Amino acid sequence: MEDGSEGKPAVQARGAGGGGRRRAGGGAEARRQKRRGGGIQQYRFITRKLAPFEVLSEEGLSLIEENAEIILQEVGVNVVEDEETLALFKEAGAEVNGERVRFPRGLLRSVIATAPSEFVQHARNPERSVTIGGDSLVFAPVYGPPFFRSLDEGRRYATNEDFRTLVKLAYMSPALHHSGGTVCEPVDLPVNKRHLDMLFNHIKYSDKPFMGSVTQPERAADTVEMAKVLFGADFVDENCVLISLINVNSPLTYDSTMLGALKAYARAGQACIVAPFILAGAMAPVTPAGVLAQTLAEGMVGIALTQILRPGAPVVFGSFASSMSMQSGAPTFGTPEPALVLYGFTQLARRLGVPCRSGGSLCAAKVPDAQAAAESAQTLLPSLLGGVNFVLHSAGWLEGGLVSSPEKLIIDADQLGMMHTMSQGIDLSENGQAMGAIREVGPGSHFLGCQHTQANFESAFYRSKMADNNSFEQWEAEGSKDTFQRANERYKKLMAEYQAPPLDPALEEGLTDYISKKKQAMPDAFT
Amino acid sequence: MEDGSEGKPAVQARGAGGGGRRRAGGGAEARRQKRRGGGIQQYRFITRKLAPFEVLSEEGLSLIEENAEIILQEVGVNVVEDEETLALFKEAGAEVNGERVRFPRGLLRSVIATAPSEFVQHARNPERSVTIGGDSLVFAPVYGPPFFRSLDEGRRYATNEDFRTLVKLAYMSPALHHSGGTVCEPVDLPVNKRHLDMLFNHIKYSDKPFMGSVTQPERAADTVEMAKVLFGADFVDENCVLISLINVNSPLTYDSTMLGALKAYARAGQACIVAPFILAGAMAPVTPAGVLAQTLAEGMVGIALTQILRPGAPVVFGSFASSMSMQSGAPTFGTPEPALVLYGFTQLARRLGVPCRSGGSLCAAKVPDAQAAAESAQTLLPSLLGGVNFVLHSAGWLEGGLVSSPEKLIIDADQLGMMHTMSQGIDLSENGQAMGAIREVGPGSHFLGCQHTQANFESAFYRSKMADNNSFEQWEAEGSKDTFQRANERYKKLMAEYQAPPLDPALEEGLTDYISKKKQAMPDAFT
Repeated sequence: MEDGSEGKPAVQARGAGGGGRRRAGGGAEARRQKRRGGGIQQYRFITRKLAPFEVLSEEGLSLIEENAEIILQEVGVNVVEDEETLALFKEAGAEVNGERVRFPRGLLRSVIATAPSEFVQHARNPERSVTIGGDSLVFAPVYGPPFFRSLDEGRRYATNEDFRTLVKLAYMSPALHHSGGTVCEPVDLPVNKRHLDMLFNHIKYSDKPFMGSVTQPERAADTVEMAKVLFGADFVDENCVLISLINVNSPLTYDSTMLGALKAYARAGQACIVAPFILAGAMAPVTPAGVLAQTLAEGMVGIALTQILRPGAPVVFGSFASSMSMQSGAPTFGTPEPALVLYGFTQLARRLGVPCRSGGSLCAAKVPDAQAAAESAQTLLPSLLGGVNFVLHSAGWLEGGLVSSPEKLIIDADQLGMMHTMSQGIDLSENGQAMGAIREVGPGSHFLGCQHTQANFESAFYRSKMADNNSFEQWEAEGSKDTFQRANERYKKLMAEYQAPPLDPALEEGLTDYISKKKQAMPDAFT
Repeated sequence: MEDGSEGKPAVQARGAGGGGRRRAGGGAEARRQKRRGGGIQQYRFITRKLAPFEVLSEEGLSLIEENAEIILQEVGVNVVEDEETLALFKEAGAEVNGERVRFPRGLLRSVIATAPSEFVQHARNPERSVTIGGDSLVFAPVYGPPFFRSLDEGRRYATNEDFRTLVKLAYMSPALHHSGGTVCEPVDLPVNKRHLDMLFNHIKYSDKPFMGSVTQPERAADTVEMAKVLFGADFVDENCVLISLINVNSPLTYDSTMLGALKAYARAGQACIVAPFILAGAMAPVTPAGVLAQTLAEGMVGIALTQILRPGAPVVFGSFASSMSMQSGAPTFGTPEPALVLYGFTQLARRLGVPCRSGGSLCAAKVPDAQAAAESAQTLLPSLLGGVNFVLHSAGWLEGGLVSSPEKLIIDADQLGMMHTMSQGIDLSENGQAMGAIREVGPGSHFLGCQHTQANFESAFYRSKMADNNSFEQWEAEGSKDTFQRANERYKKLMAEYQAPPLDPALEEGLTDYISKKKQAMPDAFT
């Protein structure tokens, strides 16, 4: 632990350009920009230098935005069992008819104008705080699976021990900037109490920023209370220290559970990711342009609600869009249609002026094989090139999100490291141009020993931790191991090396006290 | 065989917009555009609708172009053991000093101005002819490996039987538009005769366009002669029916073998791919901007030579650029630096006004596992998004190009199919917008049965042939097979179903006669 800081972070300004933000400098130095802490070298979140790749023209974007306004005005959304939200929307100018809420043209976009285009989410170690929005890109691990699969044990229900394993691996992965949320469901814990353990795991075993509970409004409130113990109540009121995933019940429906969590976080000034969850063909039309218009309409409703509750509250526009097998109804991943949706979505989010979130290394594959890697790349690369700001599920996801896997996390995290280099574009400095080297070496020789190569040796190329680049003979002598096997070895090596980042004992006691009192106040529930 | 045509194709105009060119229409219909022939449904080569992704600004491009001119003027290239080429360059205005040739600023760019920006390469089945250049994208299989690896037999030297297997699989893969060239080295055949067998394999077992021999100028001449037997001498003189790979001996060196083949093809009006072959750090500087300037300088020399020999001859600017392990010196693939080079390269080629070629599904992996798929995707996606016109090694490559693999070919070809959909962008037609469906379904219901979903059911999503999207239970019941195993099964299924496309017996006899005479005229050589 060289400078593993503990306790409260220094106060940093929130909002555009956030105080903690620092642009990377040019060249190899910037591409390798790492920060030491907690015993491991970490990459800082990405500040992108490449302009985003765009698939929709100005005309196409206007068409989809117009369609979203038509959906909001003519079809509307259902707000289920939440009188308070219905009243808030009515007061803001919407037309409310039973559960159905319709929005006059332009209303939501004008309400959303107060949302920040970027903000800082603070971590307990200020070196790990992240900027979300603008040119920044933050990678967070898998979220939600009830199962855990490893090469050693195969597939089984996940436990709290597995949860800690995944938090530790994410902590030790330099290119994962975030500890995430429900990295797996600890199904060995009571369903009404496990959010307390999950939060404690993130706080105790990592010092990266983390996500809050959304499964009940009361659990969101617990999350905010525990954040106050950790960061101090005043700091939490003035700064974003939590980000939480609010899925829309597509098509065009918000339920009281998700709205309850959204309201708790927005009122506390904490960030929500408002994310339509769409398997195209089931929750939306089968066509990308249809998915995009519906996604925009749905997203604007939840995003606007955060601004009605607390103007300026940090909020992120999310999208989870997959295709499906029209034969079996199974969700499919890594197909080209969701990639096109993702590119279009990032364009719409930028025009709305809010940060955006996508899925990351998604796949339907059961094991970390060629299918898993190909499908994952087909979501991850569009996330980078399209200009996504927050990539959930960027490491560890298998089987359509049913399974978390430590080996998949290791493999994905290696790819995330490459995105750091890719995002910086081509270095055109004098060193980057390397004309001296070309003059020095000339025709018919080689560059291995030249001065320029020696000077750039260390940082010239991304060094993969997972790729085997050895000769066939050496690979065979080492047991002909495929990537799954090598990732299993690396997972166990990292776990053996793991050391928890320091945590002030008084803060830890405050957290465990809070958890004990809450647990004692209710009986265990497993459904 | 519904319309598997045989014999000579109809004469088509060569040059910009080639007679055989047909733009795909909009929407799902276009994305699914297939043509039937030879018993299998085939995709037409891609006509891209997405604008290319660009990583270099106008200023960056000018800087690299300026550096290339400086290299050509001040450093020059070596032309080794080829007095004719030295004389041609001298006559064109270059300064020749022994082997070293230096080019006055702007000379080569002005010579290259006669090269077509796109051209048609004809196949013996005119339905398989491809346009190379402009918005088109053609996928060709792996080229060059001496080894063959299958799940059944492991890794061993490749044979002529393996060569035929790979030609047949490429023929049966709808998204492979091209039969390629040395899909593996048939090392069981005499080295001085095997080019004749390889050509015969491509002609007999496929009806897709193919590549010529480049290992000796005489073998290039044999290739042209066999093409004349197949297509007729007049047709070959007026049309491009061959494309061949001319690697530059980087840094900055052209040898007589490659120049001999280049001259034979260019004089015959057949296409050359002039491709600097660079492991950055060995054959060029370690930095992308340095690789790009050197690549441009090297490429312009060979491209210009084709135009000096035959103005208007079809020619393609190629790039093969990999990173390397600075620890072991081994080439590495799928890293971010070569992807950046690839994006920049396509921009430079477009400004030069010639079609461009990249590597495709490259990897260092020994088996078709997660490493193989991730690395392959990191080259293939930039090829699509950057705007490459001809992707060599787009399927079947393993172990840094030492190994051809039928299973890898199957896995890659499935990914190539996805690129067809991706390349078409987002359909903004009324059907694509799907507003009727959103109005019909409304909040809280589902789209599975709605009229729009039913109407678009067949073509809504790319249907992967390799992805397993079944439930875990079904996957387990079917033997818990990973992608490598499933690809092996599909490879054998395709081989069992293979039927050769019809070939006029008189043409076949003409070809076998030519081969027999050539073989009888020389003793076998194995080195």
